[in-house]
Amino acid sequence: MLHGGEVYSGRTIEYDFSVNISPLGIPDRVYEKLRENLHLLTQYPDRECGDLRRALSAYTGVPAQQILCGNGASELIEAAVRALAPRSILLTAPSFSGYRHAAEGAGAEIRYHDLRREEDFVLTERYLEDLKGKPDMAILCSPANPVGNLIDPALLMRIAEACGRQGTWLMVDECFLGFLESGEQRTMRRLLVPGGGEPLVPGREEPSVSGAERLLVLDAFTKRFAMPGVRLGYLMAQDPEILERIRAQQPEWSVSVPAQIAGIAALEADSTAAGESGTGGYLHRARRLIAGERKRMVKALEALGFHVFPGEANYIFFSSEKELYEPLLSRGILIRRCGNYRGLGEGDYRAAVLRPEENDQLLRALEEVVSA
Amino acid sequence: MLHGGEVYSGRTIEYDFSVNISPLGIPDRVYEKLRENLHLLTQYPDRECGDLRRALSAYTGVPAQQILCGNGASELIEAAVRALAPRSILLTAPSFSGYRHAAEGAGAEIRYHDLRREEDFVLTERYLEDLKGKPDMAILCSPANPVGNLIDPALLMRIAEACGRQGTWLMVDECFLGFLESGEQRTMRRLLVPGGGEPLVPGREEPSVSGAERLLVLDAFTKRFAMPGVRLGYLMAQDPEILERIRAQQPEWSVSVPAQIAGIAALEADSTAAGESGTGGYLHRARRLIAGERKRMVKALEALGFHVFPGEANYIFFSSEKELYEPLLSRGILIRRCGNYRGLGEGDYRAAVLRPEENDQLLRALEEVVSA
Repeated sequence: MLHGGEVYSGRTIEYDFSVNISPLGIPDRVYEKLRENLHLLTQYPDRECGDLRRALSAYTGVPAQQILCGNGASELIEAAVRALAPRSILLTAPSFSGYRHAAEGAGAEIRYHDLRREEDFVLTERYLEDLKGKPDMAILCSPANPVGNLIDPALLMRIAEACGRQGTWLMVDECFLGFLESGEQRTMRRLLVPGGGEPLVPGREEPSVSGAERLLVLDAFTKRFAMPGVRLGYLMAQDPEILERIRAQQPEWSVSVPAQIAGIAALEADSTAAGESGTGGYLHRARRLIAGERKRMVKALEALGFHVFPGEANYIFFSSEKELYEPLLSRGILIRRCGNYRGLGEGDYRAAVLRPEENDQLLRALEEVVSA
Repeated sequence: MLHGGEVYSGRTIEYDFSVNISPLGIPDRVYEKLRENLHLLTQYPDRECGDLRRALSAYTGVPAQQILCGNGASELIEAAVRALAPRSILLTAPSFSGYRHAAEGAGAEIRYHDLRREEDFVLTERYLEDLKGKPDMAILCSPANPVGNLIDPALLMRIAEACGRQGTWLMVDECFLGFLESGEQRTMRRLLVPGGGEPLVPGREEPSVSGAERLLVLDAFTKRFAMPGVRLGYLMAQDPEILERIRAQQPEWSVSVPAQIAGIAALEADSTAAGESGTGGYLHRARRLIAGERKRMVKALEALGFHVFPGEANYIFFSSEKELYEPLLSRGILIRRCGNYRGLGEGDYRAAVLRPEENDQLLRALEEVVSA
């Protein structure tokens, strides 16, 4: 009845590597809380998302009034673009199509900063040059999608400062950052917190208030807790009034009751991040699994002769001279072909890092395809 | 954790008459299907809402490609206003605040057609005069909210024709119409169906294509199946391309997996409307209950000395010289005070028609308050 990242016209998919969600699946606690609380569907959702925002505040360290929840990150991207009404938006290419969708929906001019294959699609100082064109808004994703590389923290800080100085809204999408062992140190949301902890770049001062004033940090439950069907994202900013303006562009009851229940339960399941020590936290386990499996898969993919691009995300971006999509699909395995991204071609693929036994299936199938 | 129509700061509500949802509660089948299918939350929602739209097509008689689903009716109102970009919108007063929210969010000029207390807030031919000002869009709700009166079918047809002729988009919100025994005969969506059945006004021809071309008919699961927490509405139009334009203003995955599951299950539960004869259908039972209880409540309210305005909806609009809200709240009963609607005052109230035993509680409490 419902399908995911790509249309695959009725063929049976046993292993879906096309969607970049947590390999651990939805935390049990989410299922439990939803089952227990289905009767709450007879009530209107809390428009303020009060309990959820308080839980997110404890989870992120960002004050609740600096957090806005939405019907998936995509709703928040679109509401933000409408509210801030940028005449021009600077996007990187390749990047997530949702940014373009939002820009087009709002009638903004789209400018592209084209990442270069010969630079492994890494964001470089060249980006600062494009910023000088003073777009009203810029959107970055770290780690990037589909390539999976992180933006260098020192560069990202310079970008934030430049945006602050010249009045460019900077949205940083961190929806995959939670899967990185270093994610908590790297998140830009720390700039939004009064006295927000260790500097991102050791020895370097945090940017002035004018940098953080123009910063929007986006995150979601979709990937982090493997719940794309629920639709739940959140946007963080320094000034609650900016979030109020964005909220005026959301429907009045945007975040459903199941989404609010699931969100709170997921944060509870991630007990490590919630302050308890130990190894039981959901994300702690996901991070460890992904780090180990990523390393193993990259090695195996390279051994099979694929070009794997450097990255740290919960997915791997690689290119192949041999067509892989159809042969894998005929084996019940779905990966993401990336030919429809600006700047990418037919031989470019993305595959999620899943559980060891699932990853084995992909590697085994690729071995067959390569040697066929 | 989650609350409904009005904020009531921590006080215990035993009976909530402030929200106009079905007195029968969520159909059991919805709970069953949700429980069975929670594992589908690990998948992205079907962006096309394919199964749901097919089910809605069978339910409404409107072809699936003429139906657009959304994250509640409120999302669809806002997306439609953005997509059609009216410079001016004609609203009636009093009416649902969501229309104003959408108009303000899109920066449209709001014009008011003020309904008159001395005319029982009934829509009259005066509305055609205001239409002559050629607003780009007009929004009507039938039965109206909060008053609960139906728009005369012959007048509504003339309005649709006038809108078609002059190029005014007409959105008719029918989210309470399903509760009326005559609802199926009265729905404007029949104008959108090729060869759409009996004329709304006997002996009168249906309007030309130009009338239906500018017509948008809105409905939702929220009230009809008592599931405001789910967020699910649908918009119908003659031209699928109009709906595509509106869809471009929705987030990419707007309708959650739980909403799609719940929607299909609710339509299944309403077996009468789905073509099976008999008395088992959910809405059939809701309509019968509401019709009987409404009559009984109106009589009782009038006997208590309140002025009850004529209406047919699943809620009753009345005015009182004595303040009712606080005394009822102190008895654990919540009704809607209507003083914040344009055109209404402190003494105006709205109460839903619920189950007999619940309605008894309200009537008993009102008796106490009146005789106190």
